Amino acid sequence: MPLRKNVNLTLVSSHDSLDLNFQSCPLWAAFCKGEDFLYPNIITKRASLTPQKTAIIFGQERWTFKDVEVVAHEMAGKLRSVGIEPGKRIAVLSPTNKDFLKVIYGCMYAGCEMVFLNERLSEEELKYQVEDSNAVKILVDDSYASKLISESVCLFSTLDEAPVEQVTSAKEWAPDRTISIMYTSGTTGFPKGVRQTMENHFTSATASAFNMGVDPNDVWLCTMPLFHISGFSIIMRSLIYGIGISLYAKFDAVKITDELIDGTVTHMSVVSVMLERILTELEHRNELVSTKFKIMLAGGGPIPIAYLERAQAKGIAILQTYGMTETSSQTSTLAAEDAKRKIGSSGRPLLLNEIKIDGANAPHEIGEILINGPHVTPGYIGHFAKHPAKRDGWLYTGDVGYLDAEGYLYVVDRRSDLIISGGENVYPAEVENAILKHPDILGAGVCGHKDEQWGEVPVAFIVTNTQITLESLQKFLSNHLAAYKIPKYMYVVDELPRNASNKLLRRELKKWLLSK
Amino acid sequence: MPLRKNVNLTLVSSHDSLDLNFQSCPLWAAFCKGEDFLYPNIITKRASLTPQKTAIIFGQERWTFKDVEVVAHEMAGKLRSVGIEPGKRIAVLSPTNKDFLKVIYGCMYAGCEMVFLNERLSEEELKYQVEDSNAVKILVDDSYASKLISESVCLFSTLDEAPVEQVTSAKEWAPDRTISIMYTSGTTGFPKGVRQTMENHFTSATASAFNMGVDPNDVWLCTMPLFHISGFSIIMRSLIYGIGISLYAKFDAVKITDELIDGTVTHMSVVSVMLERILTELEHRNELVSTKFKIMLAGGGPIPIAYLERAQAKGIAILQTYGMTETSSQTSTLAAEDAKRKIGSSGRPLLLNEIKIDGANAPHEIGEILINGPHVTPGYIGHFAKHPAKRDGWLYTGDVGYLDAEGYLYVVDRRSDLIISGGENVYPAEVENAILKHPDILGAGVCGHKDEQWGEVPVAFIVTNTQITLESLQKFLSNHLAAYKIPKYMYVVDELPRNASNKLLRRELKKWLLSK
Repeated sequence: MPLRKNVNLTLVSSHDSLDLNFQSCPLWAAFCKGEDFLYPNIITKRASLTPQKTAIIFGQERWTFKDVEVVAHEMAGKLRSVGIEPGKRIAVLSPTNKDFLKVIYGCMYAGCEMVFLNERLSEEELKYQVEDSNAVKILVDDSYASKLISESVCLFSTLDEAPVEQVTSAKEWAPDRTISIMYTSGTTGFPKGVRQTMENHFTSATASAFNMGVDPNDVWLCTMPLFHISGFSIIMRSLIYGIGISLYAKFDAVKITDELIDGTVTHMSVVSVMLERILTELEHRNELVSTKFKIMLAGGGPIPIAYLERAQAKGIAILQTYGMTETSSQTSTLAAEDAKRKIGSSGRPLLLNEIKIDGANAPHEIGEILINGPHVTPGYIGHFAKHPAKRDGWLYTGDVGYLDAEGYLYVVDRRSDLIISGGENVYPAEVENAILKHPDILGAGVCGHKDEQWGEVPVAFIVTNTQITLESLQKFLSNHLAAYKIPKYMYVVDELPRNASNKLLRRELKKWLLSK
Repeated sequence: MPLRKNVNLTLVSSHDSLDLNFQSCPLWAAFCKGEDFLYPNIITKRASLTPQKTAIIFGQERWTFKDVEVVAHEMAGKLRSVGIEPGKRIAVLSPTNKDFLKVIYGCMYAGCEMVFLNERLSEEELKYQVEDSNAVKILVDDSYASKLISESVCLFSTLDEAPVEQVTSAKEWAPDRTISIMYTSGTTGFPKGVRQTMENHFTSATASAFNMGVDPNDVWLCTMPLFHISGFSIIMRSLIYGIGISLYAKFDAVKITDELIDGTVTHMSVVSVMLERILTELEHRNELVSTKFKIMLAGGGPIPIAYLERAQAKGIAILQTYGMTETSSQTSTLAAEDAKRKIGSSGRPLLLNEIKIDGANAPHEIGEILINGPHVTPGYIGHFAKHPAKRDGWLYTGDVGYLDAEGYLYVVDRRSDLIISGGENVYPAEVENAILKHPDILGAGVCGHKDEQWGEVPVAFIVTNTQITLESLQKFLSNHLAAYKIPKYMYVVDELPRNASNKLLRRELKKWLLSK
C-alpha cells in the first residue's frame, strides 16, 4: 500500500557486519525485501492537498488542515525545546481540550509515539502504565497535575510557554511506525500497551471507507475520548480522508441533537448509552435527524433492539461494529439494512479483514473469535513486548462467537468475561486483583450485571471472615481503580465457584446473579 | 496494506550470529518470522460482502457481485478445460461484450495474468505483442478470428462450449501478483508490456477514493475500452469499492446523455472528444445533468477551457487527471473547484502518490516529470523484462512539466512528443519506424497536428527520391499500424531537422507545421 522507497544496502558477509546498529533495522528489513514501503506524512500531505478545508471544529476553534500543520509544526518545536527528540515515546494525560489536540498533532508531526493515558484511571493505574511504557516525558494537562507526580511530567502550561525550536518533519512514515499506544487488560488483568502503527490506522480507515463510503464533505461528530481508539481513530480518518471533525469535550445531548437535526455533521460514533440519550432528546423535541446525516457507528457492545427501532423512526442509520484496541477500531460492521434481519450480529469482516472461529468446521459452531488483517497490532510494549500479539497468524481475541452461513459474526461471550460499562472495558481479573489487596478479603470474583443506563456494571462476590460494607470496599478500591471499574454491588459468599483446577468460574457467578 | 500471511523463509547466510539480534528489531523480526502481506481475493470477498448489489449493467444484462463470482468460477473452470492452468499468462483480444467480461472476471479468479490487446492494432502489431508476452493462449472474440492466426488462439465460442472443470480460487492475492499487462510504446517506439499488480490497482483506487470520495451506491459509466487502463481501472474500482458499472460497448452520446440527465450514474470517465459530444447533446436538448451525477473524470490530455465552461453551465463537475498505463490510472487530479484558478493544470498528486520535477530546485522550474508511489508498475514483461521501470526510486515519464508554488502539476510537453488522438496514445517513433519500412522512403519524422475533433492527429514529414502520395503511404502503413496511428497529412521535405548528434528534432517539425 504505502510508497516504495529504494534503499541501497550492501550485505557485508563478515562478522563486522554485526557492528551495525540494529536500531536502524528498517534498513535491514528493506534489505530483506529489496524495497521498503512508506506512507506519506499525512499531516503535511493533507495540508498540501486540501489546505483550506476544515479539519476540526471545537468550541470557538475552527482549524483548517493548513492550521493543523502549523499547530503541529509549532508544537513539535516546543516538544523539542523541552527535551523530546523526534521518534521518542511520550505519554499524555488530558481531557479533550485544545492543548490535547495540539499535543496529538505535534507528536505525530515530530514522529513521537504517544501513550494515551485514560483520564479516569486511578493514580496507581497511571503509575503502572507510565512506568511500563518507559516514556521519556509525560505531558499532562494542568487540571490533572495532582494525579501524576513524577520528574518526567511536563505540564501543558510549561509546554505552552516553551520556545519553539527548529524542527523538520519526515516526508514519509514507515508502515510499522507506532503512532499510538493504548493500554488494555486481558485475561491476566495486567494492562498491556498495544501498539497501533501507521499501517494499522491506514488500513482500518481504508476498509471502513470501502464499506460505508467517504465523501470529502463529510464531518464526523466526536464525543468519544481521544485517548480511546474510538476517538483517536476519528482523528486519523480525518487526516487520511480529508474530512472534518466536530469535537466535543463532553457528551452534550442537546447540542449534539441540534447538529443531527441541522445536518451539520454526517457521521457519529456512539455507545449504547449515548444513543439512548440522543433518541430521548429527539423524541422529546418530536424531530427527525437531517437527511444529510448519514451514519451512526455503534460500538462497545450490542445495541438493544428497542433502540434500533427508535433510531429507525428518527431516520438514523445505525451500523453496529465489533472492534477493539488491538484492531485500531472496526473489524466487522453490520449494515443498517441488515440490522433487523441479523439481530444481535456484529456484521461481516470489512474488505481487508478476516475473521474465523477457532476450531469451527461449519457455520454456527461456537469458538474463540480469531482476527487477521493489516489492522491488527504487531504487538505490545513494556513487560509484554516479547509476547506476540498473534499465534499462527491470528489474533486470539478471547471473545467467543460464531459465524452464520452468510459469514455474519455473532459475539456470544466477551473475552475474559469482559464487562462493558458505558463503552469502557472492565476486565474482571483486574478488579479481582485490586479487591484481593484488601487485607480482610480472602477471595473475590467479579462479573457484569445488566444495567439500564450503562449496559453493564461490575458486581463483586467476596469471601471474608469479617464484616465489610460495599461502601468501605468502594472507598478502598478508589485508590487502585478507575471509578467505572469499581463494583456497584457486592455479595458476601462462603465460597467461590471453581473448577477442578481451582480456576474461578465467572459464568457461575452470573448464574448466581440471575437466581437472586 | 494487505493481509499478512505466514511464509517460510530461511535465511541462508554464513553469519549465523545475526540471529541473535533479530528479536531486538521488530521490523526485521516480523519479516524473518515470515510475515508477508496479502490482499483478499476481491471477487470472492466482494461477493461475500455485498452479494446482492449490482456490479455491472450491460445492455440487457445486470449482474450482481454474486453473479460476477458465479460467472468467474464457471469461466475459470472452462479456462482450465482448454488447458489454461491457474497462474498462467493469457492474452485477450475482443471488443467490449459479455464474453470479454466473463473472460476478465474468470482470468482474475483463476489467478491468470491478462495481456490486454488493443482491438485497433494491425496484425503485425498484434503478432509482436503476442510473441513478446509469451502468453500460453490467446483468447479471441470470434469477430476478430481473422486478425490473429496462431495455434495458441482459442476463440470465445470454443471457450463457451468447453466443459467446466473443477477449480478453486485462491483466498488471498499477493500484492505483486500481476493482474493485467498493457503494451505502451516509449521513446524507442518498441511497445513494452507494462505489469499492473494487485497493489498498483488497489492503491490507485484507494488514493482516488480519498480524493473524490466513494459511496456504496455509486455507479460509474464506462464507455472506455476495457483493454485500456482507463476502462479496466473501472472494473477494478467496482470490485474494490463495491460500486456498480454501467458499461457501453460503444460511445453513444444519446443514451449516455439520458443517463446523465436521469441520474442513473454518478461517475464517468471521458476524453475530450466524448465530453464535447455530450455537451452538444445536452445543449441541443437544453437540459442539465442530474444533481445525482457527481464527477466526470477527464484524462488523455488537457480539456479546452471552452469545454470546461460549457460543462459548468450544464452542472457537470470535471476533474482533469494525469495518468498513464505505468501508473494504473490517475497520479494527479485537478479538483473541479480549481479548474478555473489553475487553468491547464493536471492537479496535485493524490494522497499516496508523489511527483517531482527532475533537477528542479524551485517552483515553476521545468524538467522531466518523475512519479513515485505504490501505483507505479514494478516493471515490464518480455524483451523489456530486465529494464527497470524506475531509476533511483522514480518513474521517469518522459513528459516535461513543472509544479507551481502550491504543488499543482502543469504538463508542458508530452513524453517523446507523444500525440494523443481521441484519447489513444500515438508515439511518433513507432510511426516513423513503420514509415521507414517503405522501400522508397529515406527519412521520416512524425509530430502531432491540432485537430478539432480528435485533439491531435499524426502528421508525417518524409524524405524521398520518388513520387509518393498520402494515400499510398496510408495504404502501406495499414499493414503495420492501427488506423489511429496512421498520419492524416504528409509533407515531402528535402531534409529533416536534426541536432549535432543526428537526433531528429520533432519540435522543429511542429514549428514547420505552424509556419505553413
